[in-house]
Amino acid sequence: MQIAIPIFERFTALDAIGPYEVLSRLPGARVTFVGKTTGPVRSDNGMLAVTADATLADMPAPDVLVVPGGYGTRALLEDEEMLSWIRRAHETTTWTTSVCTGSLVLAAAGLLEGKDAPTHWAARDELERLGARYTEQRVVQHGKLMMAAGVSAGIDMALTLAAQIAGDDIAQAIQLYIEYDPQPPFDSGSPSKAPASVMELARLAGERERASG
Amino acid sequence: MQIAIPIFERFTALDAIGPYEVLSRLPGARVTFVGKTTGPVRSDNGMLAVTADATLADMPAPDVLVVPGGYGTRALLEDEEMLSWIRRAHETTTWTTSVCTGSLVLAAAGLLEGKDAPTHWAARDELERLGARYTEQRVVQHGKLMMAAGVSAGIDMALTLAAQIAGDDIAQAIQLYIEYDPQPPFDSGSPSKAPASVMELARLAGERERASG
Repeated sequence: MQIAIPIFERFTALDAIGPYEVLSRLPGARVTFVGKTTGPVRSDNGMLAVTADATLADMPAPDVLVVPGGYGTRALLEDEEMLSWIRRAHETTTWTTSVCTGSLVLAAAGLLEGKDAPTHWAARDELERLGARYTEQRVVQHGKLMMAAGVSAGIDMALTLAAQIAGDDIAQAIQLYIEYDPQPPFDSGSPSKAPASVMELARLAGERERASG
Repeated sequence: MQIAIPIFERFTALDAIGPYEVLSRLPGARVTFVGKTTGPVRSDNGMLAVTADATLADMPAPDVLVVPGGYGTRALLEDEEMLSWIRRAHETTTWTTSVCTGSLVLAAAGLLEGKDAPTHWAARDELERLGARYTEQRVVQHGKLMMAAGVSAGIDMALTLAAQIAGDDIAQAIQLYIEYDPQPPFDSGSPSKAPASVMELARLAGERERASG
């Protein structure tokens, strides 16, 4: 099972690494990080580089596609090389998935027209302008499409996907192996739960991050 | 605030990337992935490479140290270059932390003698042979030492640390920004919660992973 994770300048690392850590543990899985060219690709804040080991052209027909998010997605929304690769891959994937603002890219490729989809909460308007309908749900599935909300939601999505691919026992064993028994010290992980003052801090942080590119 | 994450062949990516994704969002934080040499470093399964942007010698005195785990830690337990770098760094850190089997490395460096500490559940005996006492607690603190259980527990640890460094509001805003509102599809993320059949699957997967290196 070939799993392709396209990476691009200013991607958000956890969007990609969460699903990688789960899906790479499926029996027979081979995860490949792909880029327009091979070599190191920097994350949104520039502090991390992950190597693209293959080019898009090297992997025209992955079984599973996972599109991560990050501010770098905005440059992809009119990038015909990436969008046509996604469209062509989607014709033969068994699963086409996204994390965070990766759903903007799927929408720009025309795959989410009129569909409910999650994205990072700060990008809801952008998603709707691309023809999808924003939902706060953490993981959404339409047939072979599966999309997760922001950043860490990719872990929940990948476990859901693992269960559909390999069964509940394997998915649970992966959850156990990565000790995913979450105990966050606060309960402020979604806009509906966070206090207004925290929401404002997070909104401002997002604006700084967007502007820093 | 300089945050150093040492990486090494066969590290577990999420151990490093979970804390990176949280701590890089602290005001004034600069996360650097450090290695014995600069350049790409492969994860436990070989499917991912992260770039070490600095050498250990380049960063003798980070403010915060985060040691990830993975089967590659076993080669570090008698690696005097790494262990003495950790000991020296620990003299001046404000926080010395580990995720998963990163605690084996802290123990081998002599920092956990007689202390309660978590690690990956599959490594509890190894941790105890190195002089610490295994605990199932997800995040454990002793003064400026903070250690997390396996893999995904690094996210919970990093949020706990973020609150101590920058206050609850900032930590909550980071949690919101990475939408860490966990909704795993199963409740099998710790040995005390997983069914016996799932525990056996996970144990076998671990043995295969260990043997594959």
